[in-house]
Parts: sequence; structure tokens; C-alpha cells
Amino acid sequence: MPPPRPTLMQVAQRAGVSRSTASFVLSGRHKDMRISEDARQRVLRAAQELDYRPNLMARSLRTKVTKTVALVSDTIASEAYAGRVIQGSLAAAVAHGHLLFIGETEGDPVVEGRLIADFVDRQVDGFLYASMFTRHVQLPKLLRGHRVVLLNCLTRTTNPAVIPDELTAGLDAARTLLEAGHHSGIYLVGHVREEVFAGRERLAGIKDGLGDAGARLAGTIDCNWWPDSAYDAVHRALTDGLAPRALICLNDRVALGAYQALREAGLRIPGDVSVISFDDSELAAWLRPQLTSIALPHYQLGWQAVETLLGEPGYPEVQRLPMPVRRRASIGRPPAD
Amino acid sequence: MPPPRPTLMQVAQRAGVSRSTASFVLSGRHKDMRISEDARQRVLRAAQELDYRPNLMARSLRTKVTKTVALVSDTIASEAYAGRVIQGSLAAAVAHGHLLFIGETEGDPVVEGRLIADFVDRQVDGFLYASMFTRHVQLPKLLRGHRVVLLNCLTRTTNPAVIPDELTAGLDAARTLLEAGHHSGIYLVGHVREEVFAGRERLAGIKDGLGDAGARLAGTIDCNWWPDSAYDAVHRALTDGLAPRALICLNDRVALGAYQALREAGLRIPGDVSVISFDDSELAAWLRPQLTSIALPHYQLGWQAVETLLGEPGYPEVQRLPMPVRRRASIGRPPAD
Repeated sequence: MPPPRPTLMQVAQRAGVSRSTASFVLSGRHKDMRISEDARQRVLRAAQELDYRPNLMARSLRTKVTKTVALVSDTIASEAYAGRVIQGSLAAAVAHGHLLFIGETEGDPVVEGRLIADFVDRQVDGFLYASMFTRHVQLPKLLRGHRVVLLNCLTRTTNPAVIPDELTAGLDAARTLLEAGHHSGIYLVGHVREEVFAGRERLAGIKDGLGDAGARLAGTIDCNWWPDSAYDAVHRALTDGLAPRALICLNDRVALGAYQALREAGLRIPGDVSVISFDDSELAAWLRPQLTSIALPHYQLGWQAVETLLGEPGYPEVQRLPMPVRRRASIGRPPAD
Repeated sequence: MPPPRPTLMQVAQRAGVSRSTASFVLSGRHKDMRISEDARQRVLRAAQELDYRPNLMARSLRTKVTKTVALVSDTIASEAYAGRVIQGSLAAAVAHGHLLFIGETEGDPVVEGRLIADFVDRQVDGFLYASMFTRHVQLPKLLRGHRVVLLNCLTRTTNPAVIPDELTAGLDAARTLLEAGHHSGIYLVGHVREEVFAGRERLAGIKDGLGDAGARLAGTIDCNWWPDSAYDAVHRALTDGLAPRALICLNDRVALGAYQALREAGLRIPGDVSVISFDDSELAAWLRPQLTSIALPHYQLGWQAVETLLGEPGYPEVQRLPMPVRRRASIGRPPAD
């Protein structure tokens, strides 16, 4: 068993004051109660000497404030997502003197309901409701009336939300290629489904960015967002005679598959084909040549969601966080014809 | 504000019993108190109709049991580590009706001390003390007397610990190559420092495994455990005329660098050189050919640490969890001379 905690009574006895006096001093209400400075000093010294810490559980019961927040996510297993989002959330929670509960629903409404009820029972001060993929969600009924910030997701109704600015990221992908001199032979690699927020917004941004310069996508190489699928699709396209100058890959795993297919076809990156991608996972820096990628701001998403929950009010309802371009060696000037 | 919680008094009134009777029924003490089955049924029905949940905070104050555990880790940002360890810990905590707090110390003793004090103030029922890398640690003073299970680390004193069985993983790496017919030209890739537990134990296992078959390592290609360093080292070794038959890479990132150097030298995997690795990160399945790798059991480490903390007693003090061999396409028979 841990050593017994010193009680408020022991502090009072050591300081030679009543329990009430000690309590008023330690809760900062000595002025209201006209307690002498001398008595106050004795109480503070006694508390320090005994290593007295107020019973937070009892105080929480009285004040209804537990200084805890709960992060409820559909999954926390995705390697690219979990660590940094949690790290950012933790850092902001600690900066506000709060501790972080964490829970995973696996997208199961029953699990989610039980989990939220458990957190409500422990009287957490607020919730982060998080999704691994940026998407629209419906706020669980149990969360209504509680302080909630949506992390990497949105509701159709009014709830504060923090998401990555995928539209500007798409614009930046286009601009980065345009700046390097690319105007034609630019292909998108990866399937865009209307319901996948990241793909839809990235594509819209890319089209806008190219359009602003009078350019356009030459086509799409259709594949899932995984290395194998991207390898197969790019390999097939090259075999069929496609001669791209630049590939915009919808994530780094797609870029990995594209790299493998380009290399097998004897094409140099970036000498023959430039490649740009999204996410800036660890993979991007490990590829040869290193991959230029537009970063998902995982840490900042976690940090800003907690800041919005616990900090001063005044943030816009939906905050779109910048996705920085990490420039590396995979983009060059297009080859001369 | 959330809807007000129904009180015990409201349940009692609805059931037509006293507050004490309702309390005894809902805490399962109706038999001791000789409460009639009819009264018991009315109380249970009233509680259900009102969606009554006991005030866990008040109960915790009384029972000193909060049904919470805290995971205190040096870092949770490492992508390969965080998600699955947390997921396993969460799943086991939920299975035991507990919720999980999470905290990151960044290896800073001051941060660690404050964090642990905060968790103690919230009267968590137990601690997981975790390290990203398997290593020896000193248990923080504040944790003495509390229920603690070490996750992926060990102390010199007696504390229950859950770690991966790196020694057997090394043995299995050797055996996997031996079974494929390799007896010579086997090189280790990666630097082994005495103080790095994983490297030291993997190497000891490899030596034992090869030795059992009368074989031995042909040498070590020295590098850090990162793709760039491994690429440079393997590239240099090949340029200097080294002709390996098999590489044992100390992790998947090292294997990625080795793949790049082998490919540049025109060597086929596994036709010319077989490759085996440790960790089984996502990368292993993304490489071409897919990489045979010995898996770090992240999920199981988290699960078993919580199980040891909250489950029935009787586990050995140090539990070494198996590291399964994930057989893929990077190992073949050695080429004929």
C-alpha cells in the first residue's frame, strides 16, 4: 500500500489552527475569512512539510471539476495517426493542468455508448471526439450537452471542429509542380471517392491550382491507397505506353508503389518523372530519392483540439490547420522533349 | 449543460422505499438487510426506468477504488510503438471494467514526477510504467507502494514486467535461415551496443542458433538502425567486394536501406541474397519482395501488462512474450557456387 496521505486535520494541528482555517487558507479564501498573515504562513509551511495534497476526488465531488478530458477515437491503432495526435493532445492537456483519458470505439456504436457513459460517470470535463480519417460524423446522443471538440471530423450541425486544410494542400501540390516548370503530363495516382474527404478536397485543390495557371491533370491512374495497388496500376499504365512527367500520389504509400514501378521501368526520379505526395509519413524520408510530401499536421490537430476545449473561447467553429509542404528530392524540372 | 443525473432519492421515491433500502439493493447488499424480493424488484425497475447510474465519484471516495489505470510512458510518439501498445492496454483495461489514463514523460524525471503525482491524486488503481525501447529502468520513488507493472522494461529489483522474448527471436532468425539451407556468408546488419537490450539479446540468440548447427556469422556490417545508415554501410561493403548470401537486419528500417543497396548493386532478393529482419513494422509488407520479419508483439505487450495488473495473480515476475516469425518472400535457398 502507498504511504497514507496526510490529512487536512494533521496540517491544521501542526499549524496550530482549526481545520476550517487550514481549509480556507489552502483553498485561497483566507482574505474573505480575515485570516491573519501569520496563520496563513504557518498553514502553508505545515502543508509543505507534510507534503499535503488536497484530496482531488473529494474536491471534484464538491466542485464538479475533475481536470480530466477524454479522447474518444474510432481507432488509435493506425500507426501514422495515433502517436502524434495523442502526443499533441497530451501536451495541451498538461499545459492546462488536465489529464487525458483515452478510449477506442472501433467504430462500434455499442462500445462507443458504454465508453462515453463510463467517462461521463467519471465526470470528465470535456471530450475530444476523434476520427482516424477526416470525415463527417454524427455526434453520439450521450455527448449532447457536454463540452466536445471534434478532432479530424465534422458534424452537419454546429460543433467546434479541428481538421487539416486538405483543399490548400491540393493547391500547394499543384503549385509546387508548376514552380518546377511542370505544365503537362501530370497524373493523379489514387482513387478519389466522393465520400472520402481527404481525396475529394485534395483533388479539388489540385484542379484549382493547375487551372489557375492554365494547366490541367492529364489523367488519373486509378488504384487503392496502398503500395501494392499503386505498383500494379502504375506498372500497367507504363506498360501501356503512358509517359508521365509528374505524378501526384494521394499518399506516401501510393508513392512507394509508384517508385517501385517507375524504377522497374528504368525511369529516374526526378530526372524522368517528378513525384509529389501527401501525408509526410516516416516513409517519405526513407525513400530514395527522398519524397516531397505535404504533411498531415497530426500533433497540431491534437494540440489545437484540446486548446479549443480548454483554452480561451473565440476560435472559429471549424478550424482548418495548415498542411506544410516538406520539400525533398523527388521533384525536378521536366525533361526537355 | 448535460441533463441532471437522477438521484438515489428519486429512485427510492419511484420504488416506494426508503433511500437506504434503495442503496442496499443497488449495492447488492439486499440479502444482508433482509429486503423483500418484491421491494428489490421495484428498486431495480425504478433505477432502469430513470436510467440511474451510481455517482462513481462519490463511490470512489468511499471505496478508494476508481476503476482507472494510468499508462506512463517515456514517449508515445514512436509510430511503430504507440498505437498497438495503447490498443492492447485499452482492450484489456476495458475487459476488466477499467478506463485508461495516458501520460508521456519524454524521459524527464521532473515531468514524470508531476505526472505520477497527478495520477496518484486521482487515485488510479494501478500503473503501467512503459518504455518505447526495451531497457532497464529505475522505478520512480513515487510509484513505490503502488500497484505497478513494467511494460517493455525491467528493474534490477523485483517488479512484475512484460517484455518481448528477443533471445528466442534471435534463435528463430538463425533457424529460419538454416532451414532454407544457409550455412555461410551470413552477415549481421546493424550496430549492437551492450546497453541496447534488443540488439544484445537478438545477437546472442543468433549466435546460439547458428552455433547449434555448427555455423557462425561471417561478420557484421556496422550501421545505425536507420535506412540511410544501412544503405551507406551495405553499399560500401558491396563495393569493397563483400559477397553475402544472407543478411540478418536488426530492424525493418535497416532492411529497407539494405534492399536499396542490394538493388543498386544488381543483386536479386532472394535469388542472390536472402534478407531477414526484426520488428515486422508495416514497412515489411510494403517492400518488394515482401520482407520476412520477426514481429514485436506490441498489442500483446499492452494487453498482458494490464492483465497482469488487474487479472488473477500468479504470473511469473518477468514475462517474455513470443515474437512470431512472419514468413514472406525475402528468403530463398542460397545460390549454387
